[in-house]
Amino acid sequence: MKHTKVRDLLNSTTTLQEVNAKGWVRTFRNNQFIALNDGSTINNIQCVVDFENTPEETLKRITTGAAVSVIGTLVESKGAGQKYEIQVSKLEILGDSDAEKFPMQPKKHSLEFLRENAHLRVRTNAFGAIMRVRSVLSYAVHKYFQDKGFVYVNTPIITGADAEGAGEMFQVTSLPLDNLPKNEEGNIDFKKDFFGKHTNLTVSGQLEGETFAMALGQIYTFGPTFRAENSNTSRHLAEFWMIEPEVAFNDLDDNMDLAEDFIQYVIKYALDHCKDDLKFLEGRLLEEEKSKPQAERSEMALLEKLNFVLENNFKRVSYTEAIDILRDSTPNKKKKFQYLINEWGADLQSEHERYLVEKHFKCPVILYDYPANIKAFYMRLNDNTEPGRETVRAMDILFPGIGEIVGGSEREERYDVLVQKMEALGIDKEELYWYLDTRRFGSATHAGFGLGFERLVLFVTGMTNIRDVIPFPRTPGSAEF
Amino acid sequence: MKHTKVRDLLNSTTTLQEVNAKGWVRTFRNNQFIALNDGSTINNIQCVVDFENTPEETLKRITTGAAVSVIGTLVESKGAGQKYEIQVSKLEILGDSDAEKFPMQPKKHSLEFLRENAHLRVRTNAFGAIMRVRSVLSYAVHKYFQDKGFVYVNTPIITGADAEGAGEMFQVTSLPLDNLPKNEEGNIDFKKDFFGKHTNLTVSGQLEGETFAMALGQIYTFGPTFRAENSNTSRHLAEFWMIEPEVAFNDLDDNMDLAEDFIQYVIKYALDHCKDDLKFLEGRLLEEEKSKPQAERSEMALLEKLNFVLENNFKRVSYTEAIDILRDSTPNKKKKFQYLINEWGADLQSEHERYLVEKHFKCPVILYDYPANIKAFYMRLNDNTEPGRETVRAMDILFPGIGEIVGGSEREERYDVLVQKMEALGIDKEELYWYLDTRRFGSATHAGFGLGFERLVLFVTGMTNIRDVIPFPRTPGSAEF
Repeated sequence: MKHTKVRDLLNSTTTLQEVNAKGWVRTFRNNQFIALNDGSTINNIQCVVDFENTPEETLKRITTGAAVSVIGTLVESKGAGQKYEIQVSKLEILGDSDAEKFPMQPKKHSLEFLRENAHLRVRTNAFGAIMRVRSVLSYAVHKYFQDKGFVYVNTPIITGADAEGAGEMFQVTSLPLDNLPKNEEGNIDFKKDFFGKHTNLTVSGQLEGETFAMALGQIYTFGPTFRAENSNTSRHLAEFWMIEPEVAFNDLDDNMDLAEDFIQYVIKYALDHCKDDLKFLEGRLLEEEKSKPQAERSEMALLEKLNFVLENNFKRVSYTEAIDILRDSTPNKKKKFQYLINEWGADLQSEHERYLVEKHFKCPVILYDYPANIKAFYMRLNDNTEPGRETVRAMDILFPGIGEIVGGSEREERYDVLVQKMEALGIDKEELYWYLDTRRFGSATHAGFGLGFERLVLFVTGMTNIRDVIPFPRTPGSAEF
Repeated sequence: MKHTKVRDLLNSTTTLQEVNAKGWVRTFRNNQFIALNDGSTINNIQCVVDFENTPEETLKRITTGAAVSVIGTLVESKGAGQKYEIQVSKLEILGDSDAEKFPMQPKKHSLEFLRENAHLRVRTNAFGAIMRVRSVLSYAVHKYFQDKGFVYVNTPIITGADAEGAGEMFQVTSLPLDNLPKNEEGNIDFKKDFFGKHTNLTVSGQLEGETFAMALGQIYTFGPTFRAENSNTSRHLAEFWMIEPEVAFNDLDDNMDLAEDFIQYVIKYALDHCKDDLKFLEGRLLEEEKSKPQAERSEMALLEKLNFVLENNFKRVSYTEAIDILRDSTPNKKKKFQYLINEWGADLQSEHERYLVEKHFKCPVILYDYPANIKAFYMRLNDNTEPGRETVRAMDILFPGIGEIVGGSEREERYDVLVQKMEALGIDKEELYWYLDTRRFGSATHAGFGLGFERLVLFVTGMTNIRDVIPFPRTPGSAEF
């Protein structure tokens, strides 16, 4: 007979039917009660084994992690905490799990231990929930943009550009590293490499995305991006997924509206579609925070925090206003900041962003109109700024507990201004001729942003280390599995 | 005022409203009629300029490729081929396009010329249509699996595994290539590399995907994969997107059912959601084939072909049956095949696959139960096969004009059999300990497949070169943009 998913069994509307369930044993109590999970939901279905008529040999093999198939009758459960259970008439062990050796025992494991077992941690409640939420959030991203008529664009992963301006790059080559071909000048002969040139892994699809936005109007990317930066922190990955919408004819205000609406939509979607998983993760976070001093605990529980973001507009604050707030702030006056804010033009550090978001505004904040010289070459120079205090139409969205979750801007659409900026910064115009073509032929105002998907998952799941929200994290010194 | 997308204007239900449209000039006829496109649809909206009251200076700047904003009244069109047009009251040139220099002139360009201008080709009708269809197909992939409760899994792009068994790999490194660090033995010291080991770009997410399927039940991946193979053909890319579902408790029959249902779903979805684009692409193909001899033209027009795939079951044929058919076929008897089929065990070449699909069955074909020694180590050995004629529960789906579009199998779930196979093939068990863990702890029957996304897009759009269905193709010698 065909088996039914646990989620469907638990949502069943009829009982007393014969059903087949397949899954993995989470626990087996009293030689009688199997908590069976098949990954379709965080909830287990209780399977009641007729232990008197089951061979001792079989009962011994019902261990945590074992794969089993049960056939039986779906009945209302007398036990607490579950609506239905299966009265098992036939049980088959599909795959054993040696209780002595299976690493995922039904007890508390450290997150570090689970990271080392990333291929098995997804069999725990927490990681099953995280990965389901991640999946639903991914889908919400696509649904949001597709419903609005955006075109999904797969920008290239391997790029011939040596500097896209967003960070250190990984090199890609098929040359034999222990016997690199040399040219006449004695340099490595990249003409012999697969692509006939030196190539890297992309740090952003924005520039290519812009060329598509200037034809299709509204586009978005959603793919892996890479940074070869030695940042061994709880917020950085060497390989992460990024979402980058780009919209022709949008200015910075439209861009902020889009980003805010988008983030609220996907969070709402997760709340609507991942109730059980988020409820579980809320409990996990509460439990985890019990060991922390009161001052370090979250002010809101997970669901409350997510709803707060939905119900409150993001606070829009110019860089100049933010500098004033920070300069007058208690930690600045008491010299508690590591980097004191003395004057306009200073780059904001994580400590400043956190102060603004977590202490001052206590809500998501959109900072905009940053000084031109601390931002990327392609950002639109503001009209009418004081000489020496030029600003660009940049925006960063800061989230409590996460920091920067979005970085974006209106793009410099004026060919001459863009070229001047590239020259001043020594960016190769020949290499980026195709990018300049967008300004040469039918240029127009346009804007976009990049959202680090794992930071969004971090926020929604209430996890605190980014390595725990991606299946197999890549970080300095670690590319396991 | 806020501008309205061309698609919405053309689908409007009321006229005589004042509207604003922004987009790019496709053509400008008689100093009066702008065909305006904004990428939201393949259709242009005609904007009728009051040329008598428009300065000569402005009229001159209305050139192919220029970005313009028009304000005017939406009225029913007197012209043929369009329901509505805009009677322009105000026209603004947003960005000029020098007619002498803009490469995308309103004339026929060769596909090769367009490939060299991949950043601009999306401004043509054909490539706009292809990229919109590609986007809609991507969404259909997600929708299909999400609606069925599959979990989307982002398997890693950078992998520490040196051989995933599916093809040649690109190396990833952050070491300085012109000054590689050496260890005491004089070898390259990969301990000093970013990840502390030699790393590559993934050729498949299957093995990692299996670990997730054995926890979450039903998963799928959809991400970029890489092959460093020097295949300069119209069907190969060095960087392509692959979809890999993996389902616990599925056997090979379930796997075939899933693949067939999935492919039919996404094609249906494209037919339902990309009518105008597919209609255009059907016309393009007809036009292209006019220059071919009758015998080389498609037997069916594009839409007819797509509907044919929906309405007919894929023909399921065992490898053994296929060999019999091929051995007795006319091209084999007349020695027209480059590789003659003499005996059971031969690997099938593209010419054989094409014969089966295009000449013999004339429909999509699922070949299954291949000889064990021409297939990958992880495939399930068939029970009860003759010694010397062992087969595995593999399947390939072959499409007319495309060849292999899907490769999959039931996986070898038995630890001992898998280990034996790995040993026989010299596959490192230590390196793949995590893969073996899925068989060590709670193993069960499972199956999955990989579908090359670009081949699907190729089939649906009727294009014939895979470089034309991905935004920026990566092929030997080419990583432009």
